[in-house]
Amino acid sequence: MPTDSDTTVAELRKIIADFVAERDWSQFHSPKNVSMALAIEAAELMEHFQWLTTEDSRKLPSDPKKLADVGEELADVIGYSFALANELGIDVSNAIRSKMVKNVKKYPADEFRGRYSRENDNQLG
Amino acid sequence: MPTDSDTTVAELRKIIADFVAERDWSQFHSPKNVSMALAIEAAELMEHFQWLTTEDSRKLPSDPKKLADVGEELADVIGYSFALANELGIDVSNAIRSKMVKNVKKYPADEFRGRYSRENDNQLG
Amino acid sequence: MPTDSDTTVAELRKIIADFVAERDWSQFHSPKNVSMALAIEAAELMEHFQWLTTEDSRKLPSDPKKLADVGEELADVIGYSFALANELGIDVSNAIRSKMVKNVKKYPADEFRGRYSRENDNQLG
Amino acid sequence: MPTDSDTTVAELRKIIADFVAERDWSQFHSPKNVSMALAIEAAELMEHFQWLTTEDSRKLPSDPKKLADVGEELADVIGYSFALANELGIDVSNAIRSKMVKNVKKYPADEFRGRYSRENDNQLG
Repeated sequence: MPTDSDTTVAELRKIIADFVAERDWSQFHSPKNVSMALAIEAAELMEHFQWLTTEDSRKLPSDPKKLADVGEELADVIGYSFALANELGIDVSNAIRSKMVKNVKKYPADEFRGRYSRENDNQLG
Repeated sequence: MPTDSDTTVAELRKIIADFVAERDWSQFHSPKNVSMALAIEAAELMEHFQWLTTEDSRKLPSDPKKLADVGEELADVIGYSFALANELGIDVSNAIRSKMVKNVKKYPADEFRGRYSRENDNQLG
Repeated sequence: MPTDSDTTVAELRKIIADFVAERDWSQFHSPKNVSMALAIEAAELMEHFQWLTTEDSRKLPSDPKKLADVGEELADVIGYSFALANELGIDVSNAIRSKMVKNVKKYPADEFRGRYSRENDNQLG
Repeated sequence: MPTDSDTTVAELRKIIADFVAERDWSQFHSPKNVSMALAIEAAELMEHFQWLTTEDSRKLPSDPKKLADVGEELADVIGYSFALANELGIDVSNAIRSKMVKNVKKYPADEFRGRYSRENDNQLG
């Protein structure tokens, strides 16, 4: 199976687009609805880490069953992210590159090394 | 700027990984914390569609300023998704392909064409 | 059974506090964890409305089974809200009254009648 | 100002209902929209705990400014919970009491004392 190194974003987006088209589901995929679906999947992903300490959450990869479960939830989150990009006509690579240019300016490496905020900001946000 | 057609998933993941490494932020990026950040960004994305009707949400691309804002939020969501994949060592392409094989079986195209559920399931979930 | 008219907030908070104390669960109920649990329950509540149009979501009370399901999810959300108030020592009535005084100033009734924003704000937020 | 001990749930619900009615906002308050608003506020609440360790999150009450900020977010969450109860005609006290009876059966105190799951369940969920 191809991996992230030999898979373009467009290829993954097409898998989602085909799945939606074959079921004629675009009618349900208003951006509002897809944004809800995405938030719901993000919550299901978070559920796996809910009662763990921050440190224990780092050990999850040592349990293959749990890692596979989390991988499925992450696939749902990214799948809906691509579904939303498909509906809205957003180029994901462009959006990420542009945002990261902003983040590099907002969080200069020298100033934020080892600290995630001047006070309490969300670092990638 | 390269687009989704000539950008691999690994390239985008590396942009995120480098950003985190240059700031020594992996110490904050426990999977628990990143899953929270991801859910928070998903909520910020959803906020753009909160008071719109489902139909009006489809018209968002006609407003370039709003589309750009939504693109930034989507970049945050996918950025944190990749940050989580980086921390856990999950291959995103593999996870999505595997999950979509399951979804194709769970939602046969002939049975689910034009209906998102037998009763009320989440279609990509 | 007593109703909202003859139940104080303190009585409901005590039901939650007793439940937690009898299981010695305060050790898991760090504010961070409870805030995650609350967000997860809010997503489960939202799931019931995910694929409905805004208008169809108003008809939910006509289906007693669905209304009962939504009532359970709402109980979870408010239950965790009270659990968080218990952990942090926040008086809920005071917090709501204070916030609503702010909201009344922020959203003057004459200016916002029939419109939820000057542009696109979250009205109760 | 009255506190949780001398405030009924109905009194708080009426504060929210009056606020909505005076602005003629029920038109925007479809259950779908309110469920989204609730999830968004839950995420904003969670944001305060995002980068803290579980243990450090317990110390938040020692910072009056942060405690006040969290109190405002909690007021938003409960405010929207009551707005949803108002739209759907759900008695909150009844819903919580009924759900907690279920939870007491699902999580017998003797079996779950000091452990939140047989394996990995959400305890109040």
